[in-house]
Amino acid sequence: MKKSQIKPTISIINGPNLNLTGMREPDIYGKTGMQEYIQNLAKEFPEVILNYFQSNSEGKIIDKIQDCSKSVNAVIINPAGYTHTSVAIADAIAAVDIPFVEVHISNIFAREIFRQNSYTAPNCEAIISGMGLHGYRAALEYLCRKIIKNN
Amino acid sequence: MKKSQIKPTISIINGPNLNLTGMREPDIYGKTGMQEYIQNLAKEFPEVILNYFQSNSEGKIIDKIQDCSKSVNAVIINPAGYTHTSVAIADAIAAVDIPFVEVHISNIFAREIFRQNSYTAPNCEAIISGMGLHGYRAALEYLCRKIIKNN
Amino acid sequence: MKKSQIKPTISIINGPNLNLTGMREPDIYGKTGMQEYIQNLAKEFPEVILNYFQSNSEGKIIDKIQDCSKSVNAVIINPAGYTHTSVAIADAIAAVDIPFVEVHISNIFAREIFRQNSYTAPNCEAIISGMGLHGYRAALEYLCRKIIKNN
Amino acid sequence: MKKSQIKPTISIINGPNLNLTGMREPDIYGKTGMQEYIQNLAKEFPEVILNYFQSNSEGKIIDKIQDCSKSVNAVIINPAGYTHTSVAIADAIAAVDIPFVEVHISNIFAREIFRQNSYTAPNCEAIISGMGLHGYRAALEYLCRKIIKNN
Amino acid sequence: MKKSQIKPTISIINGPNLNLTGMREPDIYGKTGMQEYIQNLAKEFPEVILNYFQSNSEGKIIDKIQDCSKSVNAVIINPAGYTHTSVAIADAIAAVDIPFVEVHISNIFAREIFRQNSYTAPNCEAIISGMGLHGYRAALEYLCRKIIKNN
Amino acid sequence: MKKSQIKPTISIINGPNLNLTGMREPDIYGKTGMQEYIQNLAKEFPEVILNYFQSNSEGKIIDKIQDCSKSVNAVIINPAGYTHTSVAIADAIAAVDIPFVEVHISNIFAREIFRQNSYTAPNCEAIISGMGLHGYRAALEYLCRKIIKNN
Amino acid sequence: MKKSQIKPTISIINGPNLNLTGMREPDIYGKTGMQEYIQNLAKEFPEVILNYFQSNSEGKIIDKIQDCSKSVNAVIINPAGYTHTSVAIADAIAAVDIPFVEVHISNIFAREIFRQNSYTAPNCEAIISGMGLHGYRAALEYLCRKIIKNN
Amino acid sequence: MKKSQIKPTISIINGPNLNLTGMREPDIYGKTGMQEYIQNLAKEFPEVILNYFQSNSEGKIIDKIQDCSKSVNAVIINPAGYTHTSVAIADAIAAVDIPFVEVHISNIFAREIFRQNSYTAPNCEAIISGMGLHGYRAALEYLCRKIIKNN
Amino acid sequence: MKKSQIKPTISIINGPNLNLTGMREPDIYGKTGMQEYIQNLAKEFPEVILNYFQSNSEGKIIDKIQDCSKSVNAVIINPAGYTHTSVAIADAIAAVDIPFVEVHISNIFAREIFRQNSYTAPNCEAIISGMGLHGYRAALEYLCRKIIKNN
Amino acid sequence: MKKSQIKPTISIINGPNLNLTGMREPDIYGKTGMQEYIQNLAKEFPEVILNYFQSNSEGKIIDKIQDCSKSVNAVIINPAGYTHTSVAIADAIAAVDIPFVEVHISNIFAREIFRQNSYTAPNCEAIISGMGLHGYRAALEYLCRKIIKNN
Amino acid sequence: MKKSQIKPTISIINGPNLNLTGMREPDIYGKTGMQEYIQNLAKEFPEVILNYFQSNSEGKIIDKIQDCSKSVNAVIINPAGYTHTSVAIADAIAAVDIPFVEVHISNIFAREIFRQNSYTAPNCEAIISGMGLHGYRAALEYLCRKIIKNN
Amino acid sequence: MKKSQIKPTISIINGPNLNLTGMREPDIYGKTGMQEYIQNLAKEFPEVILNYFQSNSEGKIIDKIQDCSKSVNAVIINPAGYTHTSVAIADAIAAVDIPFVEVHISNIFAREIFRQNSYTAPNCEAIISGMGLHGYRAALEYLCRKIIKNN
Repeated sequence: MKKSQIKPTISIINGPNLNLTGMREPDIYGKTGMQEYIQNLAKEFPEVILNYFQSNSEGKIIDKIQDCSKSVNAVIINPAGYTHTSVAIADAIAAVDIPFVEVHISNIFAREIFRQNSYTAPNCEAIISGMGLHGYRAALEYLCRKIIKNN
Repeated sequence: MKKSQIKPTISIINGPNLNLTGMREPDIYGKTGMQEYIQNLAKEFPEVILNYFQSNSEGKIIDKIQDCSKSVNAVIINPAGYTHTSVAIADAIAAVDIPFVEVHISNIFAREIFRQNSYTAPNCEAIISGMGLHGYRAALEYLCRKIIKNN
Repeated sequence: MKKSQIKPTISIINGPNLNLTGMREPDIYGKTGMQEYIQNLAKEFPEVILNYFQSNSEGKIIDKIQDCSKSVNAVIINPAGYTHTSVAIADAIAAVDIPFVEVHISNIFAREIFRQNSYTAPNCEAIISGMGLHGYRAALEYLCRKIIKNN
Repeated sequence: MKKSQIKPTISIINGPNLNLTGMREPDIYGKTGMQEYIQNLAKEFPEVILNYFQSNSEGKIIDKIQDCSKSVNAVIINPAGYTHTSVAIADAIAAVDIPFVEVHISNIFAREIFRQNSYTAPNCEAIISGMGLHGYRAALEYLCRKIIKNN
Repeated sequence: MKKSQIKPTISIINGPNLNLTGMREPDIYGKTGMQEYIQNLAKEFPEVILNYFQSNSEGKIIDKIQDCSKSVNAVIINPAGYTHTSVAIADAIAAVDIPFVEVHISNIFAREIFRQNSYTAPNCEAIISGMGLHGYRAALEYLCRKIIKNN
Repeated sequence: MKKSQIKPTISIINGPNLNLTGMREPDIYGKTGMQEYIQNLAKEFPEVILNYFQSNSEGKIIDKIQDCSKSVNAVIINPAGYTHTSVAIADAIAAVDIPFVEVHISNIFAREIFRQNSYTAPNCEAIISGMGLHGYRAALEYLCRKIIKNN
Repeated sequence: MKKSQIKPTISIINGPNLNLTGMREPDIYGKTGMQEYIQNLAKEFPEVILNYFQSNSEGKIIDKIQDCSKSVNAVIINPAGYTHTSVAIADAIAAVDIPFVEVHISNIFAREIFRQNSYTAPNCEAIISGMGLHGYRAALEYLCRKIIKNN
Repeated sequence: MKKSQIKPTISIINGPNLNLTGMREPDIYGKTGMQEYIQNLAKEFPEVILNYFQSNSEGKIIDKIQDCSKSVNAVIINPAGYTHTSVAIADAIAAVDIPFVEVHISNIFAREIFRQNSYTAPNCEAIISGMGLHGYRAALEYLCRKIIKNN
Repeated sequence: MKKSQIKPTISIINGPNLNLTGMREPDIYGKTGMQEYIQNLAKEFPEVILNYFQSNSEGKIIDKIQDCSKSVNAVIINPAGYTHTSVAIADAIAAVDIPFVEVHISNIFAREIFRQNSYTAPNCEAIISGMGLHGYRAALEYLCRKIIKNN
Repeated sequence: MKKSQIKPTISIINGPNLNLTGMREPDIYGKTGMQEYIQNLAKEFPEVILNYFQSNSEGKIIDKIQDCSKSVNAVIINPAGYTHTSVAIADAIAAVDIPFVEVHISNIFAREIFRQNSYTAPNCEAIISGMGLHGYRAALEYLCRKIIKNN
Repeated sequence: MKKSQIKPTISIINGPNLNLTGMREPDIYGKTGMQEYIQNLAKEFPEVILNYFQSNSEGKIIDKIQDCSKSVNAVIINPAGYTHTSVAIADAIAAVDIPFVEVHISNIFAREIFRQNSYTAPNCEAIISGMGLHGYRAALEYLCRKIIKNN
Repeated sequence: MKKSQIKPTISIINGPNLNLTGMREPDIYGKTGMQEYIQNLAKEFPEVILNYFQSNSEGKIIDKIQDCSKSVNAVIINPAGYTHTSVAIADAIAAVDIPFVEVHISNIFAREIFRQNSYTAPNCEAIISGMGLHGYRAALEYLCRKIIKNN
């Protein structure tokens, strides 16, 4: 992609069931709605264009990741349940040459044993787990520094 | 959802390849067509509205499960091949606060070892395996008792 | 066995500790007594003779299963703790040429990992787990259809 | 059970082959006979009624455990070989609401690897292994303190 | 399907990220574009009609496989990342009664350990791995011989 | 036991379901009845007293093994399903200081994987598997040589 | 500890070999010295008192964690090699009732398989891995929000 | 060591975090302080000199164990978290030729699976788990009998 | 092969190191020389021609097994160390359509764990282990009955 | 080796039991004889010199592979049973710097689990499995293109 | 470090319990004292300065390894029990850019299975096991050749 | 063998592909030819007769090991690929009552995981890995000391 654009673009890609954040299992995922949180985040980081995408479909997430190679500078991804089962998403991340940060709202290390396996994490640059929705902010902060301030 | 409606609704959600029931591998899945069977079942249980949904797509099954939280009282689900591989469907079931019964046409315990692992079963209330298409009737009977007769 | 008898016989064989149902751990096994439940069930299904047998002894359960080959048309079995440890009961089921349905009161998939292994299930025709005592009714319904209505 | 009785009762339940103690493999199990040892123990602890039961049968051990719920205040159990294989005995212990202490004459951690798995230990309050027959005294001492002195 | 048609049809079904072939990770997947390669292949094998389908979605691949049972004589499939995770695609292949050949561009045995597990391979007739895009030609050659020359 | 008796005694101890031999699953266990076979064997080996015992109960088999220490010179044991699950029977064999030969009618290596684990075999002197009922004769021949001819 | 102090204290506890950061294996751990980085961080976050502790000794790290319960409001911990082997440090974290964030400089998911096991992570509130030294800043930002802004 | 001394010495060696007993996680470790408990124990057993040592450091615990070979008659050790991870402490115990009894306050069999592995237990004479602080008394009672009464 | 020959031929094929029998490790393999034993065996069974072959080479053993398909009626094989590692010998046995009996001098179940895996046993008709050199006689007796007496 | 020779040489190296192809287990390996097939293949590919070598001996196969480094341009290898057990053959392939293609007549993924492990495949350039004897032609076609046409 | 010094320095770092060599378990570790042995070794190799360090503490061993990077040319390390459990020591070795040789007095391959895992060995240049104290001499000989003679 | 001969004999037995040392993969195995190295070694150790044997055949290596029992005082063996797969060679070593030292040129702990399993090492006296060809000298030095100087 063309790196010389005025304002860089960062995409947030959320996997299955994350559209329910704020609605279901509040002891695991908190009470704040995802949409609302992202909108506020966009205001906090005016130096980037923030895209948001959510899908329950593994295929559509892969489509989206591939699209990012054309017009996006970095991706924050929460593959949710696909983290632990999707070689295909992991392959898509490996195929796209921009930095990815993987975010999990809950602490996946404190949950079921099958959530400790991650196909996607080795292909991402960094992982944040257990910070609630703040994890997206921390990822954004990290990527902005990296892309804009180069630090 | 509003529990005071006149007639409760129960959804049947079928996973991949179950549209072929009655057509393929009759020694495993039997000879009766699924559609035809469900229609007859609806006549047997006039006290409920019976919805039917089938998809080969993990994502669309998750979409459907999420929809059920709004207007459905209980779900009969046969995740087929996704039973053994989908953390995402299991998460969707956990996120929707109505009873699920998992049905398998064949006896999954008498098949390949990888069919013995089930991500979805721990999040369902009950499991029926090996009763052929009758398994759907048994699940429906159970859920009707639970929802209507409360027994 | 002689299939031409007027009324078919179905045996319920319960394994260890199921004599305590209704008395212990009500959050797992419910509050209704087993004996009482079976008696009511017998009234609901007058078209069959319903036998009931419970033992804490693996050997006596095998003896009983072998006896069934002579005078019983089908068996509903809940091997309880032996489900996960008894090759010998599994062999007995395999040796007796009538249909078996395995029933578990609780959802064994939602409990300890060692309860996910079942030696007996592959030798049964069908499995029901997590429906409480209703599981016995559902098994009986299935077997009556199979034996009497042949459907 | 009725806790107000004058003298509390503690049962010792011994599993398979422990009737041979003092006769077989003295390097593992010692040279003293079990019966004789228990009799001396009863004299040392006049403040409790001490019952003794031994069986080679898993089923009879479960029967006995269930009986304890009616008239016994605590149980010292050495499930011997069943420790490592019996889900059914473990379930029986869980179903009876009095304290159990598990005793092993030899140090099971210094023997075959399959002796390191214990189904029963998680359902007991405490475990003693490797103290020879003295392990029964230590268990009794512990339970007397707990029941009588409440300390 | 009707086998007497003048010219047989063979479908190539490609799984996730294979639309990127020739664009990404050239040391693993080579530099030639997939589309271009398939077009040339069609010219090399005028005796068959060659269909091409690619999707990142597990569900759409299953849909496509099912469609093949109606009008296609054989399938060349590269399930890519789904090879190692999709019971559902494996079930679809088993349900369709025409020959499948599984192709992998890279040598999956020389990559990560999780790529050594294949759900789909046992249900295919043959597997080719590590021949680059030529693998598709080799599969086509094999299937043409089988279907047309019957040899 | 007193080794100077005129005629040595050898016990055959058969485990669960072996009372059905000749009646069930003839492709695995053959068509000859066990009782009849043992009687003929006794005639073939007049130099020993041949005892026969069968039980479906693990506990009774242990009782019997313990009894053998008093009056029997050697034991032929087919623990059947308990071979793979009984630490308690294995312990009983270890506790009795006479030679044991383990016999399996079928070739357990050619069956389910769980039949490859044997708790009892390490404590027996020899194992014969897959010779049908002749395995008992071969074991008897071996033990007679050992005990009588000392060769 | 007394929460009403004017300025909260946050401790950074670094495990073995992290004193070498900036000196060894720069492709894994970066080129910046740890000491220097922490000092700059303290200036960036004047609203907290920032303590720094590094030790190669598991025992001293446990001592330090225990000390934190008395006077510290939150801890950022990088247990380095002990992450994967120390039950004792994990127990110490569990015993101290203040929030912990675990930081790893490199992406542990992209390294050796034994680095995927973490004893400490389940007892921490959140985990950051792969952000280089910036991971400490991100942890600090998170904890400041939590403790001071309560958000 | 010289066994003829007037009064034998027994050391209690406690591993990491046991200095917090009575302060942290009272549902697992109880409410009584360790120091206080040991002092009372010393009064109960005037026939021995009772030493107490606690360290969070694996190395210091090994130093202490080695010291015991010179002047101590027996050791009660609770290696806490090091139980499951320290080959080095296990080697130290094996190298010192006096009896060791391993004590765990909680029932380690009822906790996380990694607490079921014990490197130290095979090198100790006996193990007590789940008796709370009383476990130390039971160990002391056992060792006094062994050393003084030789029974 | 031609079954109508006057006298049937049985081959004994011994694997690596069995040429040392009677010379090495007498506590495992006994003191009698193999050659001598086989010669005596030939005299005991004049009704068959007894061939003997030993090699330390996996390849020569396979050559020999293949040769047997032409002129031999049955084979007694002791693959020794190759039992546990040779798929190739197992394949050779499967490819030759005459009965094989596998013999082990020692009780392989009482030795190292890697000796419990057998590639060859599933392809043999029967297995004898632990009878010393007598195992060859027992195998011969079995095969003579089978081939000559057909019983 | 000298690459400038007029006609390149390709060796076919077949492992154990492949000399029996066409003679044994026709449902797995087909009915055509290997020798005959190779001869026809040589006629189909006049542009290369085709060598054929078969051995049941692991050592001779290694000798042959080493020889190939001197005078052969590429190798088609079917290590048969040694595929799954021979580190030594895998090492030989790695040591010889010419392309290898691994061929299996049957689909090894549809057979026993131990056939899914391949030591040799990671060191070969490509693998073909399940195409029957045609697999050799497909490998030859691939290697001719590579060596001669360089495409 | 400065490589141009007149006489190179080699450190011997010994892990836990190796201070007891010559005193404990002489059948495993021999009868010679370590200190005495090292002193004699220093005389045998006057061309190097030989440092000796022993600690039971993982942390101090790491401190020492780090120190070596400043003034030592090569290290002989026997991590003893930490070999099998310390990622932290392995990391320290990796961080110091001088050659390490790992020595074990006993043959660790002939001992418990957990001694077969080595975290440190992959980061060392060479490993010697089972040569008794001579292993240190062999390591020293190797390192002297490497450093001084460069051969 | 006769130990009183004037000059002891030591055999070096090299396994598969070691004839290629100095020719292949120099980054793993170095650049020096094996033959040349051994010849120089023989000159360095005039006090012993040095035999050299290399074979790619497991069987011939076993033949050679057995021969050593007659006329050789000690063996240096590098079983190469057979280290990890040959129970038969391990058995041969165990059967020959002279000391063996196992040598590996490369550090097998730093290579593929399957190279960490060694069947032969437990039966050898010592192991050297990673010292390049010098490992043979170190082994020879050790064996000369042991046999000649007895130290």
